[in-house]
Amino acid sequence: MGETIIRIGIIGCADIARKVSRAIALAPNATLHAVGSRSLDKARKFAAANGFPPHVKVYGSYEALLDDPVVDAVYVPLPTSLHVHWAVLAAQKKKHLLLEKPVALNTAEFDHIIDECESNGVQFMDCTMWMHHPRTAKMAEFLSDEQRFGLPRYIHACFAFSADPDFLKNDIRVKPDLDALGALGDIGWYCVRAILFAANYELPKTVIALRQPVLNEAGVILACGATLYWEDGKVANFHCSFLSNLTIDLTAVGTKGTLHVHDFTLPFQEREASFSAGSESSFDDLVTKWDPQPSRHTVNTDLPQEVHMVREFSRLVGAIKFNNGKPEKKWPTISRKSQLVLDAVRTSIDSNFEPILIQE
Amino acid sequence: MGETIIRIGIIGCADIARKVSRAIALAPNATLHAVGSRSLDKARKFAAANGFPPHVKVYGSYEALLDDPVVDAVYVPLPTSLHVHWAVLAAQKKKHLLLEKPVALNTAEFDHIIDECESNGVQFMDCTMWMHHPRTAKMAEFLSDEQRFGLPRYIHACFAFSADPDFLKNDIRVKPDLDALGALGDIGWYCVRAILFAANYELPKTVIALRQPVLNEAGVILACGATLYWEDGKVANFHCSFLSNLTIDLTAVGTKGTLHVHDFTLPFQEREASFSAGSESSFDDLVTKWDPQPSRHTVNTDLPQEVHMVREFSRLVGAIKFNNGKPEKKWPTISRKSQLVLDAVRTSIDSNFEPILIQE
Repeated sequence: MGETIIRIGIIGCADIARKVSRAIALAPNATLHAVGSRSLDKARKFAAANGFPPHVKVYGSYEALLDDPVVDAVYVPLPTSLHVHWAVLAAQKKKHLLLEKPVALNTAEFDHIIDECESNGVQFMDCTMWMHHPRTAKMAEFLSDEQRFGLPRYIHACFAFSADPDFLKNDIRVKPDLDALGALGDIGWYCVRAILFAANYELPKTVIALRQPVLNEAGVILACGATLYWEDGKVANFHCSFLSNLTIDLTAVGTKGTLHVHDFTLPFQEREASFSAGSESSFDDLVTKWDPQPSRHTVNTDLPQEVHMVREFSRLVGAIKFNNGKPEKKWPTISRKSQLVLDAVRTSIDSNFEPILIQE
Repeated sequence: MGETIIRIGIIGCADIARKVSRAIALAPNATLHAVGSRSLDKARKFAAANGFPPHVKVYGSYEALLDDPVVDAVYVPLPTSLHVHWAVLAAQKKKHLLLEKPVALNTAEFDHIIDECESNGVQFMDCTMWMHHPRTAKMAEFLSDEQRFGLPRYIHACFAFSADPDFLKNDIRVKPDLDALGALGDIGWYCVRAILFAANYELPKTVIALRQPVLNEAGVILACGATLYWEDGKVANFHCSFLSNLTIDLTAVGTKGTLHVHDFTLPFQEREASFSAGSESSFDDLVTKWDPQPSRHTVNTDLPQEVHMVREFSRLVGAIKFNNGKPEKKWPTISRKSQLVLDAVRTSIDSNFEPILIQE
């Protein structure tokens, strides 16, 4: 097979790029080839601060990196409002695309991105790291087990963290021209993805935003929530907030089983992660205790979840580059579904909390 | 002080009365004096099946038990539709009242009950056992700690269990003439109480039922949910269902802390119970793990929670009977708040999911 290492470029020196650059270094089938920023100085400082080896190129513009023919794929951690421009350009330059979430400001923009990815034959994957943790596969096993879990009936997700005053004033995620979806795009994204995950990626029929969302002066969402309804009677609730203590919950209640996880986007510890699974839970005869009780499942991993992500992305890119493979459609498909639900929540907020039909 | 043992009578031989009669036997300040059923034969069988000692009287009618002058207090596990009649009569006969939940079919009925309790100087307490578990006091300590928890911002509760076909056909909780509130009254009650508990018993301003409640042919609720809104921006969601795997969750997210408990109405085990508490939770610098992580708090108890309940009820009754005390108003007050929220959920379901203002 020869060379199967995928050469990745990073455009944008966001904080999260520190973690992903480490993941690229740790992934056995990827290597960091270049980093590009709006200024050469910024790119150099980022490379130095993160201890990049000397062979990593630094570029003073995103275009220059995209024009480097050695770059197979780019990781794009730019503010959401810039995604459509740079993701489209990257695809046009035949660069495979690992794009930060939320993937776009709305589905129309995202469709532009995936159209370009499709017509240029490049792999698209969003940067939802927890999807790639081996625990997630174990949870999916449980959720798809008709005997242990049955059919999902109720799903709940919550992602909150307590942003400090500087974040609430200056972070790109509270700026209407950079990340207009605010908390909904940043952490509501994970709630929506988790709900879709637990619903086997079946889109809800209707979405209704909760009332009393918290917006900043510029109209960016700092806290909100929504209820999702499926035609088969399934219901999901989520809440996301920049204004409460760090909380990352997913609960899925099925006809026969229940799943609980309290750190679904980022495990409490890097090398092991667990979840609780109850099946046909019940009380004893006199209703004094549970019998059986839920059990705890722990999954160990040598690699952090973001390394699993980069490895899977690079594997898919390698299959295209070296084995004439086709891009895997699963990833853009679930990105689009996530974005469709985000759009509906935003529309419901802007429409006096009316029910919004999801149209695929 | 002399005799301080409270003599309790039970009217109605419901399943749950088995557990409460055991609790009365175990409570150091209470004794089971009598049991009454609609037939003497049924009362005798219940006494025999539960191994009541020979001094426990059996009555073939509820009236006869209420007319026994030795009975200080009655425990009433009758179907909800019968509460107002028998609770009022008990209060008029000066019997202190331990009443099963939901306390009434609606707040108007409940007001009739507490009016009679007040004018007759008897103690009222509903039978929400978990309120009396020592773990609940520990959780209340955490939730009221401004440093560790801050102010509540989001609360989530879920109570589901998987009812078998016989229950769904024959149980009093699915009969419109007996327990018209169905799952909302039976287990939604606990969700609402838990939410109020986490909100320091502050009533929400508005309640909106979730769409797609499941009703049986007679219109009794088998599954439903609601969102509660407070004027200060707090939001709560709950879901209750007879149609999913046993799940009993309370999550409270505050500005500084988060509480999780997965068995809040009935601990997994009888002698120990735990909850998880996170405070100022955060990630490490590179966002690879939580630092600090939430901690687990375990509370041991020699007595099951229902014994704590009977002991507290009997203590309050004893204070009235032997020490010229006044009835403790906390208990009827929080019962009434719970009922007000249940009423609003039902009204919202019956009003096409319109927001319902809570009027105290």
